Amino acid sequence: MSCERVFIAGSDGYLGYGLRCYLQSKGHAVFGVDNLSRRILVAEMGSESLFPIMTVRQRGIAVGDIREHGKLKSALTRFKPTVIVNYAQQPSAPYSMQSAQRAMETQYNNIIGTLSLIFAVRDCCPTVPIIELGTMGEYSDWIYQKFPIPEEPQVLVLFGEPPHPPHVHLTIPTPKSAGSFYHWSKVYSSFNLEFGCKLWGLSATNINQGVVYGTKLPDTLGTMTRFDYDETFGTVVNRFVVQAVIGAPLTVYGEGGQTRGFINLKDALRAVELCIANPPSPGEFRIVNQLTEVLSVNDIATMISQFTGAEVEHVENPRVEKEKHKYNVIYQKLKDWGLIGHHSMVDEIPNMVADVKRFKTRVRENVIQPRTQWRATA
Amino acid sequence: MSCERVFIAGSDGYLGYGLRCYLQSKGHAVFGVDNLSRRILVAEMGSESLFPIMTVRQRGIAVGDIREHGKLKSALTRFKPTVIVNYAQQPSAPYSMQSAQRAMETQYNNIIGTLSLIFAVRDCCPTVPIIELGTMGEYSDWIYQKFPIPEEPQVLVLFGEPPHPPHVHLTIPTPKSAGSFYHWSKVYSSFNLEFGCKLWGLSATNINQGVVYGTKLPDTLGTMTRFDYDETFGTVVNRFVVQAVIGAPLTVYGEGGQTRGFINLKDALRAVELCIANPPSPGEFRIVNQLTEVLSVNDIATMISQFTGAEVEHVENPRVEKEKHKYNVIYQKLKDWGLIGHHSMVDEIPNMVADVKRFKTRVRENVIQPRTQWRATA
Repeated sequence: MSCERVFIAGSDGYLGYGLRCYLQSKGHAVFGVDNLSRRILVAEMGSESLFPIMTVRQRGIAVGDIREHGKLKSALTRFKPTVIVNYAQQPSAPYSMQSAQRAMETQYNNIIGTLSLIFAVRDCCPTVPIIELGTMGEYSDWIYQKFPIPEEPQVLVLFGEPPHPPHVHLTIPTPKSAGSFYHWSKVYSSFNLEFGCKLWGLSATNINQGVVYGTKLPDTLGTMTRFDYDETFGTVVNRFVVQAVIGAPLTVYGEGGQTRGFINLKDALRAVELCIANPPSPGEFRIVNQLTEVLSVNDIATMISQFTGAEVEHVENPRVEKEKHKYNVIYQKLKDWGLIGHHSMVDEIPNMVADVKRFKTRVRENVIQPRTQWRATA
Repeated sequence: MSCERVFIAGSDGYLGYGLRCYLQSKGHAVFGVDNLSRRILVAEMGSESLFPIMTVRQRGIAVGDIREHGKLKSALTRFKPTVIVNYAQQPSAPYSMQSAQRAMETQYNNIIGTLSLIFAVRDCCPTVPIIELGTMGEYSDWIYQKFPIPEEPQVLVLFGEPPHPPHVHLTIPTPKSAGSFYHWSKVYSSFNLEFGCKLWGLSATNINQGVVYGTKLPDTLGTMTRFDYDETFGTVVNRFVVQAVIGAPLTVYGEGGQTRGFINLKDALRAVELCIANPPSPGEFRIVNQLTEVLSVNDIATMISQFTGAEVEHVENPRVEKEKHKYNVIYQKLKDWGLIGHHSMVDEIPNMVADVKRFKTRVRENVIQPRTQWRATA
């Protein structure tokens, strides 16, 4: 792979900092910008990264918000990227459901930030591909039931059974529907970007990412990225590992049949590298489903319980979601480009448990239990 | 119809002020709030309402922005509405395509304003129906080609022709796709509201409105609403009428086969009254297609030309859109509730021409020609 100049928006987060370190180790030039919202919001939740992380200054990240459009254009003009990765998103579904202000801030940050980026690329570097981080959660559980989520933007459909209007053939994008205001913000960002590609010939890779887990970057880097385990910013795998380490039961939301795609952090970083090495065509809006395994919450709880002896406890599900459903998704492109998926979750759990044990004394036990109610009224 | 307490967000605009006057004349109590963006933005375009309009103070409108969530909740709590109408949207597609800042402001205002309202209703008056102004433009011209746009939120489809995955039946919402960042903002607002209904049992009527035209309110009111004719805030009918009155050719964008739904202002106000009188069920997200006629741009140019003798000139289309296509839409609900559609465009044009002639000296000729390029690059 040739030496790229990678502009990473959101380079202080779990993935953003990891990608920065990883790509630099591969000889690429990286410019990272971040508005520090992850640090600020996790602190607002009364938590912090389980692993101590460097200061922003030590990490060498430029502090800025991509919604500041003029500054974003200046940064792009100065750095002259050959590829842009947009991780500058508030990533928590629970956060977006906690209050009006948090829902509004999530959509304002995610949608308007991406929109600012779309125009900036049009005006500063329209041939430079954008890698936009979406999520498999842009497809709601109702569609998982019946239809394998494809990686093509279009699928063929037949419309209209009686008493509806005539049977016709129509090619439409795979329908999207989300389960939180955060997930909707990703849907809207994807639509805006696709529209930018259609209008102005921009090129984009829209990654539908599964849940990323893992405690560290590729071993050669000798550094760690952040690790959140609070109910708002910690994903299910992180929370279960921390619960197991502190001797608490693993709290499964509802029946635990919720099934999702997952990918190890190291594979996720490698996947982005492969998206960079295999760029989209000019004007193409390309979809990549980024996952290596499909697991249910119960599967994960069982794995961690078997390794650690932790108990599993089913608690009331704070979310509005199906708790038992099929999950059918196609993820072929990354395989075709050579992603092997070395790191299965069952192999990674011992490493995660070992890493978390090293920082066990830093665990704040009161931040793990669910407090965010999807159904909440004031 | 019983006496309602109607909260109108965006009550200083063309429709918002009109609805306020109309509903008050019918004996309803109305509270109007507006952030004055229409006045401000039209002035920014170098234009103003062709008809002199009253000051905000004279109109008795509360100045405020529904994104100010705390103030919105206070206003709802004080007024105790029985129905809420959300017109608080930046309504111009060209405006949203003029620059990054204008695209960002459009989506920030429209999406986040509606999101603020959704949470405020959940917290202050969850049983009060919301009437949300959407647009027929939430369905892009690609879908008009093949499928009559229904008023049901769901249509039956069959998925997957070979080589795609298996044929299955799946009920999905009518696919949406838009042609400007403004139109996308309406799509996203509709999705957020539908999600609010699903999660919290809110009730909503989502009006897919056609293009509204007309110079005045029902005659009994003896007052006028604003009338914009600039290229950014004036719709095609308004611009053509003004061009005819000043002796300029009617500037048709491209071939002129662009076909849309239209509705007279008086019918549009009556339609909202009917939506209020026929409320949705609790938890229902109801779609109403609000139009009374389907016309092409050429149809409109021909009508106005025949009445006034104006020439028709085809200019380069600044937009990215199909210029010749079918348009097939179902609009039955308003008919069922009694909307007759008294006011066809051909009958209304003489009234519009007469009204515009009264204010001919106020016409600013330099604001009419298209300047906004959908394809523009910096």
